[in-house]
Amino acid sequence: MDALVEHGLLVPGGAAGIVGRSAVFEDIRERFDAAVSRAAAGDGAERMSFPPVLPRRYLEDTGYLHSFPHLAGTVFAFEGGEQQGIDMASMADRHEDWTALQQASDLVLTPAVCYAVYPAVAARGPLPGGGVTIDPGGAFAFRHEPSGDPTRLRMFHMRELVRIGAPDEVAAWRAGWCDRALALLQRLGLQVRAEVANDPFFGRAGRMLARAQREQELKLELVVPIAGPRPTAVASLNLHREHFAAAHGLTLADGRTAHTACLGFGHERIVLALLRTHGLDPRGWPPGPRHELEMP
Amino acid sequence: MDALVEHGLLVPGGAAGIVGRSAVFEDIRERFDAAVSRAAAGDGAERMSFPPVLPRRYLEDTGYLHSFPHLAGTVFAFEGGEQQGIDMASMADRHEDWTALQQASDLVLTPAVCYAVYPAVAARGPLPGGGVTIDPGGAFAFRHEPSGDPTRLRMFHMRELVRIGAPDEVAAWRAGWCDRALALLQRLGLQVRAEVANDPFFGRAGRMLARAQREQELKLELVVPIAGPRPTAVASLNLHREHFAAAHGLTLADGRTAHTACLGFGHERIVLALLRTHGLDPRGWPPGPRHELEMP
Repeated sequence: MDALVEHGLLVPGGAAGIVGRSAVFEDIRERFDAAVSRAAAGDGAERMSFPPVLPRRYLEDTGYLHSFPHLAGTVFAFEGGEQQGIDMASMADRHEDWTALQQASDLVLTPAVCYAVYPAVAARGPLPGGGVTIDPGGAFAFRHEPSGDPTRLRMFHMRELVRIGAPDEVAAWRAGWCDRALALLQRLGLQVRAEVANDPFFGRAGRMLARAQREQELKLELVVPIAGPRPTAVASLNLHREHFAAAHGLTLADGRTAHTACLGFGHERIVLALLRTHGLDPRGWPPGPRHELEMP
Repeated sequence: MDALVEHGLLVPGGAAGIVGRSAVFEDIRERFDAAVSRAAAGDGAERMSFPPVLPRRYLEDTGYLHSFPHLAGTVFAFEGGEQQGIDMASMADRHEDWTALQQASDLVLTPAVCYAVYPAVAARGPLPGGGVTIDPGGAFAFRHEPSGDPTRLRMFHMRELVRIGAPDEVAAWRAGWCDRALALLQRLGLQVRAEVANDPFFGRAGRMLARAQREQELKLELVVPIAGPRPTAVASLNLHREHFAAAHGLTLADGRTAHTACLGFGHERIVLALLRTHGLDPRGWPPGPRHELEMP
């Protein structure tokens, strides 16, 4: 982190896991996002971009809190009157805890960029034959895991692609994208491999969820050495089966419940992997990665 | 709102003031952002991009809750143990209120994109001679004002530029940008004018703040007809004098407290103004605006 700040790549954001990004960092990040778009061009995905908050109800409908209660962020706000407002501001002046005057709103922070996609597509009615592919772009996701590790930010960009359709189509899409994502990251000169993985489920029950997820190979991660003894996941490919579709009523043209899958690249982690692999100054990177990122 | 959804420009986001944006909407928005960057090229601004959350402390340091307690959003999260996690998830399954198990984190939602800039620049020490201009880009800001009006979103993109320097430099920068921003919006074919304005300060004390702000012409807004009887602010240019600089310790090379100013364009409002003025299909827009937005 210190080296990244010293080289003007990241800017301290004043809290654990919150960082600002410099022009150089953003240039790499946006070029990677564009490289994903080029790799995805054949999918004919429909673009649909959402803000980094969504209805609290969506977390409830999908059972998110069973799996990740520790990672969720909820949005609170003030609903009081004039005197309470003055009291709250006065407490804030003294850096006392004024948050008891905040009440839960109907919003939560977006835990994964695809969460807003499923209900939006479901609201249109049954899927067309062949299903749909949605591109929610590169957008912010939130995970409440404060840390000083630049590879573990609390708010970070996730570039997703979402496939919704019949079970076999969705499984084939994920398998195909595992190869395409590996090839893309290899063209960027990263030492990447795919492995079966599990989400960081909460608590004792979470250990069983993790085991089942691994046994069924529902989650694949693409991992790259960045720092520390073990490689870091920079992308994941997830089969949700009927999980999101059943929660939101996503049905196929024939009335069956759809399957869904998503692909997510962690933008900041990929930029960090590139900086670690090729050096902190992109002008000195090898021709292959520079070409892939269309650097002039 | 219905017409925008029907024409595939916006996607309902499941809560008041939360919307998804289609490919067409995003294309216009990104082209406008690029047009601002072209207009700003001569400023030599340093790019510095922050996530849509920031330390709660920054709101305290700047007295935000005195002015806008009703607009702030705070981030809460779960810090409990295994049984509390299970209880919380079970309540969520039944759509009961599980938010009593959430505790305030150290983060708030970003109320304006420039809020993260001042402490980041202050941390570097005294400003260089001539001050600095910072480009935090087009990023999300949050205002807790739930509404069904597409011009009043709770989470929206604000493209800011920030000037930090000596009082006369900062005032001249704002005056110059008022002209440049007006000219840019006129080239886009918008019926725009600048007017002295005030922020939506809270409560009775807020009325005095608003009057003082108007008398000193600290806030200028660029307004455009979109919907309803009165035109809508699509950009604002704000002189903060020593407000942010004193809160964060921003000093000039000679040790005096700096002045700051910011310019903010409301991306979504500008896209809506363009759609209202020129029609819901950008392919039919007049050549002038299409040229300015570099539409092919």
